[in-house]
Amino acid sequence: MLKNKMTELLKIEYPIIQAPMAGGITTSNLVGEVSNAGGLGIIGAGYMTPNQIREQIRELKQLTSNSFGINLFVPNEFAYTENEIISANELLQPIRNQLHINEGPNIEIPTCGQVFETFTEQIQVIIEESVPVCSFTFGIPSEAVISELKQNNIFVIGTATTVEEAIEVEKSGMDMVVVQGSEAGGHRGNFIRSTQDSLIGLMSLIPQVVDHVSIPVIAAGGIMDGRGLMASLCLGAMGVQMGTAFLTCIESGAHHIYKEAIIHAKEDQTVLTRAFSGKYARGIKNKFIDEMEKHEDSLPDFPVQNALTQSIRKASSSQQNPDYLSLWSGQSPRLAKNQSVKMLFQTILTEAKNMKNK
Amino acid sequence: MLKNKMTELLKIEYPIIQAPMAGGITTSNLVGEVSNAGGLGIIGAGYMTPNQIREQIRELKQLTSNSFGINLFVPNEFAYTENEIISANELLQPIRNQLHINEGPNIEIPTCGQVFETFTEQIQVIIEESVPVCSFTFGIPSEAVISELKQNNIFVIGTATTVEEAIEVEKSGMDMVVVQGSEAGGHRGNFIRSTQDSLIGLMSLIPQVVDHVSIPVIAAGGIMDGRGLMASLCLGAMGVQMGTAFLTCIESGAHHIYKEAIIHAKEDQTVLTRAFSGKYARGIKNKFIDEMEKHEDSLPDFPVQNALTQSIRKASSSQQNPDYLSLWSGQSPRLAKNQSVKMLFQTILTEAKNMKNK
Repeated sequence: MLKNKMTELLKIEYPIIQAPMAGGITTSNLVGEVSNAGGLGIIGAGYMTPNQIREQIRELKQLTSNSFGINLFVPNEFAYTENEIISANELLQPIRNQLHINEGPNIEIPTCGQVFETFTEQIQVIIEESVPVCSFTFGIPSEAVISELKQNNIFVIGTATTVEEAIEVEKSGMDMVVVQGSEAGGHRGNFIRSTQDSLIGLMSLIPQVVDHVSIPVIAAGGIMDGRGLMASLCLGAMGVQMGTAFLTCIESGAHHIYKEAIIHAKEDQTVLTRAFSGKYARGIKNKFIDEMEKHEDSLPDFPVQNALTQSIRKASSSQQNPDYLSLWSGQSPRLAKNQSVKMLFQTILTEAKNMKNK
Repeated sequence: MLKNKMTELLKIEYPIIQAPMAGGITTSNLVGEVSNAGGLGIIGAGYMTPNQIREQIRELKQLTSNSFGINLFVPNEFAYTENEIISANELLQPIRNQLHINEGPNIEIPTCGQVFETFTEQIQVIIEESVPVCSFTFGIPSEAVISELKQNNIFVIGTATTVEEAIEVEKSGMDMVVVQGSEAGGHRGNFIRSTQDSLIGLMSLIPQVVDHVSIPVIAAGGIMDGRGLMASLCLGAMGVQMGTAFLTCIESGAHHIYKEAIIHAKEDQTVLTRAFSGKYARGIKNKFIDEMEKHEDSLPDFPVQNALTQSIRKASSSQQNPDYLSLWSGQSPRLAKNQSVKMLFQTILTEAKNMKNK
C-alpha cells in the first residue's frame, strides 16, 4: 500500500530507510534485518577503513539478498593550529586521567590528504562490491565521483538541511535527497549555511523543499513510528529515514548504556554540541557536554576534535559510563523502544494502515 | 469531513485556528473572516488595554455570529536595574536618533503591579463580553482565573512547548493545549524550561505530547497549508493554529512592508531574538537584530525591553523601513501568500480533501 516512486527506484517494499549511524551501530545484523523487513538498511561507514567496509559488505550479503546502502562522509578541507590542540588537550587530559587512559600527549590526527585518500578508496570498494545504494552527508562529492557511481548503476543519495542545499544536491546529479530536520539526532549535514541558520523543523522544511526539487525527498529527524511516516508523506516526502528508532533496536550495535540513556530521555534533554567531534551534532546532554559547554566555540574542527576525544569515548564505553559517551539522539526519545527490527516494522505498518483506512 | 472532538468543543466547522498575533495584526476584519470561513479567529490582545479589548469584541460581533477567541499574555514577575536600562538605552539611542524620534530619556516602563492589574481587568472584560474562547501564552493563569472563566462557560486554551508544559496545562484544568513547535514565529510560549531547551520540532513534539495528555492537542509552528494540516492530524493533533499564513492575508493588519518581507523571505532567514521585547521570539533577521546580536544576553527582560523599543518599532513602521521592525515569522515563509482568508481556507480544504481521497 505504501509503494511509490521512491520504493520503486530503491527496489524496496516500504518507504523506510534506516539512517546510517557511524561508530559501530549499524551492524550487519541491523542493516540486514531492515533490508529483509522490506526497508533499506544502510551501513554507516563514515569512520570505517576501506577494508572494514569490504568485509562488512560481504558479511551483509550473506544475511540479505535485498537492496541495501552505504553512507560516507564527504571530506572537507580542515586546518588547525598547535595552540588549538594544546587548549583542547588541556580540557581533555583531566578527563583522560579520570578514566585511567594511558595515552601519550601525541594523539595521531589525520591529515587532509589522508582523509581525501581514504574517501577515494572507500568509493572504490563500494564500486567493486556493487553496493546498490550510496548516500552522502557533510556535502556533495565531486562530479567525477557521482558520475562514476552512477555509471556503475549505484543509486546516489545526498543530504540537505535547507532548500538551497537540496537544490544543490539535485543539481549535482544525485538521485534522491534526504532532508534533515532540526529534530534529527547525530551530526548535522549542513554544508552551505551555518548550523544555527539551518535548523529547520520538518513541518517547515519538507513542503518548502518539495516545492523546489523534482527528485524524491526523504524526511529525516524525530520520525519514530507510523504517525511520523504518514505525516512525512502528507508533507510531500516520498519516504522517511529513521535513526534513533533503529538505534535502540535489539539488533543495533549501540552499547546497552547508550540504548538505556535514550529510552529514559525526554524530548527536551537533547542539545547540539561540537564537543565530541568538532562538528555540530544532536545528542543527550551529559557530563562531557556540560563540561565543554563554555569552550564550544574554541574547539578544533572535525575531524580533529573527534580524534582527540576518541580514547575518552572508548574508555567511557568499556567502563559502562554514559558520562563521556556521545549519546546521539533525535528529539523523540520518548518514542524509542528496545524491540526487534521486525516488530518496529510491524508496528509502523499497522499504524500506517489504520490511518489510511480512517 | 474534518470534524472531530476539537471542532465540536469549539463549535467550529474546520480544525483551523488563526493564531493570536499581538500588535495590530488581528483586525476585526481578519478575525471575523476566519470565524466566518469556519475556523476560529482569535484577537491577539496581549498588548491591548481592557477598553480596547471591549471595543474590538463589540466590533467583531458585528462581523460574525460564529465562535471566536481572545488571547492574553499570562503576566510573570519581572525586575530590572537602573544599569540595565542605561545600557539598553545606550544601544537604542543612536537608532532613535537615526529614526528622528523625539523621545526623552525617561521612557515609561510598566511596573509588575500594573501588568498584573491590567491582566485582571482584561479577564473581567472577556467575562463581561461573553467571549466564547480564551487562550493564554507565557504560562498558566491562576486557578481562580481558570475556574472563573470556566464558570462563565468560556472555553480555556493553554500553550505549551514541551511535554512537561502540556501536562501542566492539562493539570491546571484548561480545556485544550496548543503545542508550539520550534518552527513557530513570534514569541516562545515556554514557561518551565529555557527557550533553548524547549525548541522541539513539531514532528517530535506532537506525538510525544499526544501520548501524555488527554485534552485535545493543537499543533502550531510552520503550518501553512493542507499538507501541514493533514500532517498534524497524522501526528495525533486534533487541529492546527496558523500564524504566518494569516499574517500575510489581505485582511490582516500587518504593515505591507512586513507582509512583503515575509513573502520574500526564505526558510533559513528567521532567528530567535530577545532584541525587540526581552523575550525570545522568532522573526526574520534584519538590521536591528544584527546590531543587537552581541548584546542579546544583557538586554532587560520582557516587558521592559519591549517598552524601550516601542518608539523605534513605531517610527520604523511609519517610515516604511523594515530594518527596525519586528518581522515575526515562522520557518515556512516560502509558503506565505498575499491572499484573502477565504482563498486560504479554500486551498487548505481542497488539499486536505485530495489527500484524504488518495
